Amino acid sequence: MRATVIHGPNDIRIEEVPDPVIQRPTDAVVRVLNACICGSDLWAYRGVAARQPGQRIGHEFLGVVEEVGREVAGVKAGDLVVAPFVWSDGVCDFCREGLQTSCPHGGFWGEVGSDGGQGEAVRVPFADGTLVKLPQEAVGDEKLLASLLALSDVMSTGHHAAVSAGVRPGATVAVVGDGAVGLCGVLAAHRLGAGRIIALGRHQARTDIARAFGATDVVAERGEAAIEAVRELTGGQGAHAVLEAVGTEESMRTAISITRDGGGVGYVGVPHGGSAGVDIGQMFNRNVSVGGGVAPARAYIPELLADVLAGTINPGLVFDRTVDLDGVPDGYRAMDDRSALKVRIAF
Amino acid sequence: MRATVIHGPNDIRIEEVPDPVIQRPTDAVVRVLNACICGSDLWAYRGVAARQPGQRIGHEFLGVVEEVGREVAGVKAGDLVVAPFVWSDGVCDFCREGLQTSCPHGGFWGEVGSDGGQGEAVRVPFADGTLVKLPQEAVGDEKLLASLLALSDVMSTGHHAAVSAGVRPGATVAVVGDGAVGLCGVLAAHRLGAGRIIALGRHQARTDIARAFGATDVVAERGEAAIEAVRELTGGQGAHAVLEAVGTEESMRTAISITRDGGGVGYVGVPHGGSAGVDIGQMFNRNVSVGGGVAPARAYIPELLADVLAGTINPGLVFDRTVDLDGVPDGYRAMDDRSALKVRIAF
Repeated sequence: MRATVIHGPNDIRIEEVPDPVIQRPTDAVVRVLNACICGSDLWAYRGVAARQPGQRIGHEFLGVVEEVGREVAGVKAGDLVVAPFVWSDGVCDFCREGLQTSCPHGGFWGEVGSDGGQGEAVRVPFADGTLVKLPQEAVGDEKLLASLLALSDVMSTGHHAAVSAGVRPGATVAVVGDGAVGLCGVLAAHRLGAGRIIALGRHQARTDIARAFGATDVVAERGEAAIEAVRELTGGQGAHAVLEAVGTEESMRTAISITRDGGGVGYVGVPHGGSAGVDIGQMFNRNVSVGGGVAPARAYIPELLADVLAGTINPGLVFDRTVDLDGVPDGYRAMDDRSALKVRIAF
Repeated sequence: MRATVIHGPNDIRIEEVPDPVIQRPTDAVVRVLNACICGSDLWAYRGVAARQPGQRIGHEFLGVVEEVGREVAGVKAGDLVVAPFVWSDGVCDFCREGLQTSCPHGGFWGEVGSDGGQGEAVRVPFADGTLVKLPQEAVGDEKLLASLLALSDVMSTGHHAAVSAGVRPGATVAVVGDGAVGLCGVLAAHRLGAGRIIALGRHQARTDIARAFGATDVVAERGEAAIEAVRELTGGQGAHAVLEAVGTEESMRTAISITRDGGGVGYVGVPHGGSAGVDIGQMFNRNVSVGGGVAPARAYIPELLADVLAGTINPGLVFDRTVDLDGVPDGYRAMDDRSALKVRIAF
């Protein structure tokens, strides 16, 4: 089969790789129908996150089950399924508690020795613990497929940010980051009943989506000016809940600074700024908490799926370009230079 | 009157100062019956936290109301009262929400221009918002007075750590710090129904109190060895909730490292290690949250007071030495060299 492989910074190739096969009785093989490129893939693309030359890449996909191991009971050949960006055994303490990202048998698509999501097929370990069935009718409905694909990571991650920040009905929420995760954070906050949602972003195509997702205010400033602007919008107090969806030192510092005393930052941007932006002195004096991390998408998919199927949320709006497998390297370039927000790969 | 004054590092004096008087109609003057020395006072004593020469010191006290301004309605002359370590107006958004430490009209005893708690009397701004009435029968009951005095800071702060860490019935809790706040954190976790409480500490007099307060395990190791020991006690997973009651880089690092994936650190140690100990990468991968800060003691005193009066908690056990006002400089020395855990001042 053919799959996306990363050889080094700015070196993404489509190559022939071995077909996936069932290796363990709990495996499934999924033929990929839709995948996508993640903002976090860009850290590898830019050489900030190290990868071994020839490593697979991509961690978001949905597709059709092709074959299952003899112990798999929850899905069968022909089922349409979505995979969260981490696989998990489904039976350990953490999986049962809904923190599948801490499953001791779990792993990330594309890590050494595993398939990546940006390929024609994927061997899925612990298929019962990992995959979530989707209605077959979605096949062929491109708009619906895009929203279902978003459950794999960005929508679940935006929801995690909102939950971790403590978004409550009526709350004033601010979202730092206008990438696909930040925009999904806006949507998640709106879904959870936020009374006011301030999106920080300066690209109109993105802030238009933010408004479509429920943002009531947009702040185009950055750094100190953004902090000032949010404080002004909130009577000097800041937001009850702040979603941090970037992962840099500046974004974390901004997030903490615009949080109302006693409020929370929910952070889901993969930290690339170390701890320097986590201003513990400010957090202490104002009782600002910081929570979040890698989102247990597997725990959230069922409830978010219900809303996607009901048509009440449409996270697929974050995809503004679709490519085929051969177009993936171009897709990386487009996301890297921000001419695309998020690229979907249709097989 | 006479009060404790700090002139510089290691220079604590008892001096004649002006008698406090009602300056605003919302003031009260309280004649101090009991005060104490706080671990956080030692940061000033050691010269780590800057003070102006001649500044008052001490922020924990209880006493008898001597006089009230004409707008004070909640307390009257002769009432026995306890003061939280921060005064607050009682009517702003934050006070009504129970985060009195963020009251825009609030302040800390001993800050420039205010009285400190370690003196014969104190002018109390916003007496209605600040003071909590105590039963008159406590006067003369030294054991009860000690526990009531602990509500002013250490017991309320330990409770804040437990609440901020998310202690739930049945939870496994670890407490970093064997000072008075850490020990009160043990008591607070026990009161909230923790199933297992691991106290980190190596001084037997202190760990004996920890056990009396509900600790089920004691870990004498520090640093990496402590992390190993807690992991071993918890089947490799760590504690659901960790209370950080020290405030150094190492203590925060230890606290985060011994928290179970998905769990929380409640930190109340005044941060003196910067953000270096806040390992955001570890927090992200394991979904460990960090919350807490300066405790809104005023919000907690009523519920904790009920338990002190019912005899179900006895936080006064943290006081292992009592001095009169002239003995205060010796009290600082004793706490500084750790020959005393916490010193009570009886007037």
